[in-house]
Amino acid sequence: MTLTKKIPTIQDVARFAKVSTATVSRALSRPETVSVDTRERISQAIVVTGYTLNQAARSLRQRTARTILVALPDIGNTFFSAILDAIEREAGARGYGVLVVNRFAGDDSGRRLQDYFLSNRADGLLLFDGALALQNLLALTGEPANVPLVMACETIPGAPFHTVRTDNAYAAEVATRHLIGLGHRRIGHLRGPAGNVLTVERETGFRTALATAAVPLFPEWLFTGGFEMEQGVAAAEQFMALKLRPSAVFCANDEAAIGFLSGLRRHGLECPRDVSIVGFDDLAVAAHSWPPLTTMRQPREALGRLAAAALIDLIKGKPGNQVPQHTVLSSELIVRGSTARAPILHLANAALQQ
Amino acid sequence: MTLTKKIPTIQDVARFAKVSTATVSRALSRPETVSVDTRERISQAIVVTGYTLNQAARSLRQRTARTILVALPDIGNTFFSAILDAIEREAGARGYGVLVVNRFAGDDSGRRLQDYFLSNRADGLLLFDGALALQNLLALTGEPANVPLVMACETIPGAPFHTVRTDNAYAAEVATRHLIGLGHRRIGHLRGPAGNVLTVERETGFRTALATAAVPLFPEWLFTGGFEMEQGVAAAEQFMALKLRPSAVFCANDEAAIGFLSGLRRHGLECPRDVSIVGFDDLAVAAHSWPPLTTMRQPREALGRLAAAALIDLIKGKPGNQVPQHTVLSSELIVRGSTARAPILHLANAALQQ
Repeated sequence: MTLTKKIPTIQDVARFAKVSTATVSRALSRPETVSVDTRERISQAIVVTGYTLNQAARSLRQRTARTILVALPDIGNTFFSAILDAIEREAGARGYGVLVVNRFAGDDSGRRLQDYFLSNRADGLLLFDGALALQNLLALTGEPANVPLVMACETIPGAPFHTVRTDNAYAAEVATRHLIGLGHRRIGHLRGPAGNVLTVERETGFRTALATAAVPLFPEWLFTGGFEMEQGVAAAEQFMALKLRPSAVFCANDEAAIGFLSGLRRHGLECPRDVSIVGFDDLAVAAHSWPPLTTMRQPREALGRLAAAALIDLIKGKPGNQVPQHTVLSSELIVRGSTARAPILHLANAALQQ
Repeated sequence: MTLTKKIPTIQDVARFAKVSTATVSRALSRPETVSVDTRERISQAIVVTGYTLNQAARSLRQRTARTILVALPDIGNTFFSAILDAIEREAGARGYGVLVVNRFAGDDSGRRLQDYFLSNRADGLLLFDGALALQNLLALTGEPANVPLVMACETIPGAPFHTVRTDNAYAAEVATRHLIGLGHRRIGHLRGPAGNVLTVERETGFRTALATAAVPLFPEWLFTGGFEMEQGVAAAEQFMALKLRPSAVFCANDEAAIGFLSGLRRHGLECPRDVSIVGFDDLAVAAHSWPPLTTMRQPREALGRLAAAALIDLIKGKPGNQVPQHTVLSSELIVRGSTARAPILHLANAALQQ
């Protein structure tokens, strides 16, 4: 037999491996039904003929890791505890293990991600970290790797991936409207970390609510923040340095809100007497902090469970999964003691401003 | 060739597989140096001859998962966030992935644990869950599985495993002595979950401190508790129902302490004016709760890092690892606003009691 110069076909592979084309096909789609011996021979034939090598190599490699890879931006953030719990339950019930990695964004080559799939340690990726370069993700999900991917919570707007998330902009709007409804007209926002999609979405919702109610926003009422308690404490210093302070602050998450509260207290300010505060997430501690925190409850159990289910469906090639599907969950306003009616004094001040 | 009735040897395997004994030996110790074909033949020969089957099967299976399995009792408990973070960093730096599983104790057969190793998905087990039956763990670490195991935080006293933990009894003693040093003579303890080794150790340290200082302990001052916030809230109800209440309570962990504080507040009690409270762990939120929580700081980063390092050393067969090694870390008393001097009134009451 001589090798042809034209694009090699499955017939070339079959001829070279001395098996039928049906066997080659079977070895590619369901390798476990073909003997190791035959598979080896087909594998060699593929290499020699140059038959769409990558795809074939990938198909030959059995997907038997029965493991999903969960990539988190910050495993130390307690927001993820309940989510990981739900992922582990859902995956476990379906016979899948859960590999956890942290801060992939620090690896800008994307190679560390790829390695997990090249070495067949995971069957798919559940990505909670929106900071990864889109090109690296496309390289992962495209030919030849074809890694099943679901993005959760932090998504990349417009990217062609399955997503499971909450409507952050709308939830931020609801949180801000709650403050407006209490009579507050001087409302600040403690921002999330720079460059994060959640930061952008939550600030957008905050601005929408203010604009809709014609409540003015001063740039100095947008505090540099983050998602960590210590960043909330630091934002309290910015707050204290203001000449005209807001009477209410919507914080980008609960951890920052708890830190902000703690920082204000060090300066003798009391919540909600001096400032009303709204958080975001409803961590377990929100109900037991002092004062108990008004916040937007994110359905963390459902986020974890549905994200894991979506990825496993994708891995198993469930029909209807060719087109990216988007699951958007709602958050719920939980009113507790950290928000109160705006004091008359503040309203008078606000009137003075206008 | 006929099979002998005597205990089969490596020669029997070699003869049956039509290879040299050197090849059999190589296939067992370094399977990657032998062709798949030959390995298959040797594998069959092992089965047919009955040659110390299990050990051989295990050796044949390559340890290439480059993954450690981390088993947690409750992934939803934020205590583990910082620990998981440290494990992931240490393992990642050494080229290992981290598989996370939760609540293995619910599976009393131990089969779910075994499956991870039989299917070659992990190279070793980092166990934070002390509730597993010792016999299942011994089955895992003994012949033929020989799974490398390190127990962390929750250990099984006297079990022949490597351990990384803190000295819980001593730390509880330090926490209780802090209360005695503030003049408290009516001191209660919010216990951890029943049947947990940490519960026993922390209560032991509490009792030791009281006994040493000749401070009396009334059984009704031992509150039924747990490691979760809601259990702390429930314990506050037990506290409120008492006729003679302690002036200070040592709580088995921070989450319970925060719930306990929250529960007391609902009844109008103030900490530390009415009750001094000490926690255990020093979660990030302890510094920012109200009042800021006095607690025993557990070195969570070091616990995670050293436990992962110990397991990977064990997997790599680092010399000196034949005998179980025990790493015991210290906890540190962090004094914050939740503890204060005992009111004179309480001292008088205590005197009245005696």
